[in-house]
This record gives sequence, C-alpha cells and structure tokens, in this order.
Amino acid sequence: MKHKKRVYMDYAAATPLDSRVLKKMMPYMGARFGNPSSVHEEGRFAKQAIELSRKNIASILSVLPDEIIFTGSGTESAALAIRGIAKKYPSGHIIAASIEHAAVLENARALQKEKYPVSIVDPNKIALALQKDTVLVSVMYVNNEIGSIQPLSEIARIIRKERNRRKQAGEGTPLYFHTDACQAPEYMSISVPHLGVDLLTLNASKIYGPKGIGLLYIRRRIAIEPLWQGGGQERGLRSGTENVGSIVGFTEALCITEQKKKKEHPRMSKLQQYFLKEIKRLIPQAILQGPSLGILRVPNNINIVVPGVSAETLVLYLDKRGVAVSAGSACASNKQTAEKEGIRFTMGRHTTRADIDYTMGALCDSIKILHGTEKNRENIY
Amino acid sequence: MKHKKRVYMDYAAATPLDSRVLKKMMPYMGARFGNPSSVHEEGRFAKQAIELSRKNIASILSVLPDEIIFTGSGTESAALAIRGIAKKYPSGHIIAASIEHAAVLENARALQKEKYPVSIVDPNKIALALQKDTVLVSVMYVNNEIGSIQPLSEIARIIRKERNRRKQAGEGTPLYFHTDACQAPEYMSISVPHLGVDLLTLNASKIYGPKGIGLLYIRRRIAIEPLWQGGGQERGLRSGTENVGSIVGFTEALCITEQKKKKEHPRMSKLQQYFLKEIKRLIPQAILQGPSLGILRVPNNINIVVPGVSAETLVLYLDKRGVAVSAGSACASNKQTAEKEGIRFTMGRHTTRADIDYTMGALCDSIKILHGTEKNRENIY
Repeated sequence: MKHKKRVYMDYAAATPLDSRVLKKMMPYMGARFGNPSSVHEEGRFAKQAIELSRKNIASILSVLPDEIIFTGSGTESAALAIRGIAKKYPSGHIIAASIEHAAVLENARALQKEKYPVSIVDPNKIALALQKDTVLVSVMYVNNEIGSIQPLSEIARIIRKERNRRKQAGEGTPLYFHTDACQAPEYMSISVPHLGVDLLTLNASKIYGPKGIGLLYIRRRIAIEPLWQGGGQERGLRSGTENVGSIVGFTEALCITEQKKKKEHPRMSKLQQYFLKEIKRLIPQAILQGPSLGILRVPNNINIVVPGVSAETLVLYLDKRGVAVSAGSACASNKQTAEKEGIRFTMGRHTTRADIDYTMGALCDSIKILHGTEKNRENIY
Repeated sequence: MKHKKRVYMDYAAATPLDSRVLKKMMPYMGARFGNPSSVHEEGRFAKQAIELSRKNIASILSVLPDEIIFTGSGTESAALAIRGIAKKYPSGHIIAASIEHAAVLENARALQKEKYPVSIVDPNKIALALQKDTVLVSVMYVNNEIGSIQPLSEIARIIRKERNRRKQAGEGTPLYFHTDACQAPEYMSISVPHLGVDLLTLNASKIYGPKGIGLLYIRRRIAIEPLWQGGGQERGLRSGTENVGSIVGFTEALCITEQKKKKEHPRMSKLQQYFLKEIKRLIPQAILQGPSLGILRVPNNINIVVPGVSAETLVLYLDKRGVAVSAGSACASNKQTAEKEGIRFTMGRHTTRADIDYTMGALCDSIKILHGTEKNRENIY
C-alpha cells in the first residue's frame, strides 16, 4: 500500500516547533549570540533575555523568577529534583509513584541500588507510604501513556497534613512534593499555588517549543544539590553556558500554550470523543486503556489494546500507512519492558477530524491484515 | 564618547552561529521534529540524523561512532567525565590540573568535599602527582584565559608508562586521561589518537555552533556512571530526548572548523602578531600574560595586564567604546576569585586588522582616562 499523506498522532512524544517560537529564537541564533556570563553589551543582552524569560515563566506558574532553574530537558529537571533532594538528605526517604515516566522512575530505581531509602508505590497509596523521614514525594501530573490525571491537590493536602504533624511533634525533617508536569501544560492548569507542589518539571519539546530545554521550579528555601558543578550558572544548580535562544523559545511556547488552552481543550475533547466513538463502532473488540474520557484524562490521549494484535506490530503497520503512533512511551523505548503495551494515539494542535478518519482507515486495514491468515500477512520488513 | 560600531573580541566566551550551521539545523526546527526514540518514520528520520552526525564527528576525531556521547554543554561533558569516573571508582584517585576551567575544577573541588581522593596540581607536575590508585587525570588542551597549549601527548606518554608499570606489577586499577578541548578545535588538531587521550570534551558554542550542545568522547570499554538516569538515551549515559537539530548543527560546525583550520591558523597568527606589536608600541607598560606567541599559545588569544589599571574596569570602559572583551573567563564570572586578572582579547573568524586598530584606539583612550586625575575620570555607571 502506497501513501503520501502522513498523519501524526504522537504529540506526546514530540511536538513540531511553533513558527512563532522559532521567530522569537532567531535573533539568538544570529546577532544576539553573547555569553550571558559576559559583562559586555553582547553578554548583557543575553542575560536580559534569560531574566525576562524567567520572569515571564514565573508569572505563568504564579511563582517567583528565582524559583525557576533552566535545564537541558525534562528528564534532567526530574533527575535534578530527585537526585538533588536525595543528595541533600541522604538518609531521607523518597517516594515515587509507580506510574512515573522513566525520568523519575529510573532515577528512583538507581537511588535504591545506591542504598538510598526509596519506595516506588501505587499513586493512590502515597498516604500509606509516607514515613517519618520521607523528604520527597514525586507523582506525575499527567501520565504520558494513558493520559490519566493524578490528583495532585489531594496529594498536596496529605503532604501538608504530614508537615503539620511533624511541626507539632517537633520533627525537623522537611517534606517536599515534586511533580513531572511535562504532559500537562497544553490542557491543564500549571499554576503552582493551585497544584500545591514544591518542585515542578516542565520541558519545551512537548509544548511546541525546542528540544534540549527544560526547567525545574524549586520553591524558595528548598535546599537541593546540583547534579554537577562548574561556572555556577542558574544559582549554581545548573552550570554551563545558558541556552539563551532555547530559553526564549521555551518561554514563548509556554505563553502560547497558556493562551490556547481554553479553546484547545474543548476542541480536543470533541475530537477525542469522536475518535473513541469511531473505535467502538469499527473495532468493537478494542479496549480503552486508562480512565474513561472526562475529567480524569487529558483530552488528547487515546490508548487501546486490540486483543490478539501486538501493539509493536500495529505501530509498524500504521507507520507504513502514514500514521505515526506509539506503543507505550517513546521515551522509554530504549528500555525493554515486559508489560503489555497498548497503542497510543496522542493528538495535538494540528489534528483534525479528517486525520482521525484517515487513522481509522489505516487502523482497520492493519488489524484486518494482522487478523488474516498467514498467506495474507504482508511482510512488514 | 558615542559609538555605533561594535568590535567583538570575546570569541573564547561565545561565537556567533555560522549561517551554514543554522541552515543545516532548520529542517529539525520544522518538519523533522520527531522524537528519535519513536519507531515511526518521523522518529527514524531523527534517529538517522543523530547517527549520521555521530559518524561524521567520530570520523573527524578518528574514533568510533559509539564512543561519542552527546550532552547539553561542555560543562556537562566535563562533569560526566570527572563525576562519571569518580562514581565508578569511588576509591580511585583523581588528578585535575590547577589551570582547568570551572567545568573541571569545580567538579574536582566538589568531589574533594565529598571525600573523594582528588589532587589539584600544576599541569607540569602530573607525573609527580600520579599514585598507584590514580584512575583519572584531567588536563585541558587549550587554556581559555591565556590560550596556553598543554602538552597532552607528553602527559599521555607519562600515563601510558604508568599503565605499563601497573600491568607488569599485576595491579588492576585502570588509568584514564581526560582533556577539556573546548577551546581547541579552531586551531589545534583534535585527532584523538594523535592526542592520546581516553576522554575528550567538546562543545558547539565555541566553534560557531549552537549553544546547549556538547559531547564527550569516551574510549570503548571505559566504564563510567551517568550523571542521572531516565529513558536510556546515549547508551544510558545521557538520558533525555536528544537535541536533534543542535546535534546536526554541532556536526556541521565541527566540519567547517576542520575545513577552515589550515587557512585560519596562519591568518590569526598574523593578526595576533600585529595586535601584540601595536600593544607594545602604544602601551609599552602592558605585560603579556601566558606564553609568548608561538607554538605554546593559540593564535587568537592576547591577554595583558596593564599595571595600575583594573581589568574589570577596563572591560567596562572598552564596552562603552564598542569593544567586547573579558577579564578572566566569562564562564567563571559568576564566581568571585581573588586572583589578579588580565584583560583577555580573543579573536575569531570575523576579526580583521581594522578591528584591532579600533580596539587599540579604544584601549589607549580608556587607559589614558583611567590613568588621569580624579576630575577627568568619567562615571562609567
């Protein structure tokens, strides 16, 4: 089967760069190339661009500018949060939700191997997992595989309660709450006071911004160790010449996301409902993975298991038919997992009803062939 | 004094992005936005771009592609080398040259504080500092402040000798040699076999490439721990979605640098000689910092102390007159040091003889004012 059209249904893995973001970045890939640490004009322009970005992002998150640390990716931000707190409080207990992205989970696992006290638990059992010496709880905001929204405010309440208990008991161990919010900004509020978190990870490449740039919000007065040392940039927490253009681009991407959210959420919800209705109609045996559509699920995610069809194979068949989807998380695909994977469709700003129709055609066609007899099977390779 | 012209004499702090590099990057900021971990076409295009880049860079360094790890900066690369080896061999002794950039030095100092056995020594005394349990020696290739070239091949010989001694003595401790070569590619050979190093740090932003991208060459079979964990990208040594466009840009920048080196070196040498001649003629009291011009110094660096004139102040006066220079290293300027600093002029591809003449005018003018009486002093702020 030949195809010319490509339908991209993998926005949770990567988003195209918004042209307005690129436009904002261009001066920093041209005349404004100074090193922000330089005291001369070229350096000051770069420094000012970073500090204005920091201020604008802080305003969106409803936090203070100096609470924002720019990093090289969402993974690095999450690692800085988890490892930075672990290193500061080596005997402190850390809780990570079992549903976390590899960015959190693999650091938690590595810390366990390094003999740090770490528990990896069901996100609904955070309260039970809390210990007297727990210093950090990490629960992601929106799961990248099934789009489930975690009840951060509720978890924040549990954490506040434990903090109060410690205060009254005269116990000095701090307790912080980190969330990996990389999949959230397009559809969810990312107001830090609203969420009640102490640390928050974001990156640009999931919100139509550039690759290679992330941030970690760290509430003031939280002591944290850097992953490495150097020239002391980003308050000593992320040494290395700042990626000025990408910081500016990240900021623009987040601003656009904030502006679009209100309109994009209902548009996406409708597409999601249509998509699921079509799946139920044409592939009745398909099973939706994760929460029902509604307030517990972001509106751009559909994840299904088709009984008797391997998700990995289906991804290849769909790709051949021009549809880009993922089985499980793209970020984790370098790792082998034994878990049964669904096929994940994640929609985005450019997704239309026609894209869903095209996807359904390719999906039905692929499943038909995969369910066919040996002789009908095409050789995918 | 009003000025319109800007003369940039701080290429060691930052270089402008080469337009050919930008051109190569553009597709990855447009249609080719896929996540390299995705198995679909969009992902594969991204993955292929990275692997082709890795191959091309490996060819320039005369190493194998899988010996190249892309990181987020030169600082991160150096940190990965130092911390990665330290963590793998916690009782192993580490030697860092005292002249290193903060990227190496601050990690070495931090490891000392964390009770790792670390010696920070004169680069000429590496042989004396070697111990039976030394696992890593780190000496920079070209010093960023005074442009001095370190005798890497000689140090490599010393290291090979110690390795042979250990082999014959049946001692199992490995010994590796890392160099921070960030300031080297424009004028020096970066052939790894020629240098005799086991690990080598480079970044793009010093060679007319983008900010936010670096690499670490790690010789095969060297065991090293990552700075953090995650999706397992870059052979598990640098998790996080790869910065595809910047990797492609870095590669193009390094290719151009290799092509230009032969012509650019003599051109720069002539400019450097002219510059120093003018300094001696017009500011005879100025003292050149670092090696004499010639084989021990890169041809783009002039660093002088003008007795009685603060380098920090001179930088501001020159900036006001349109000349961008640095006092000490821009990368270290977030740190306070007690050392006496010179004023550093670093030239680059766009530097002309006219730029030097303009700089000399601004320099003489500034020094005259700074040497003048109180009432003649202008208020710089």
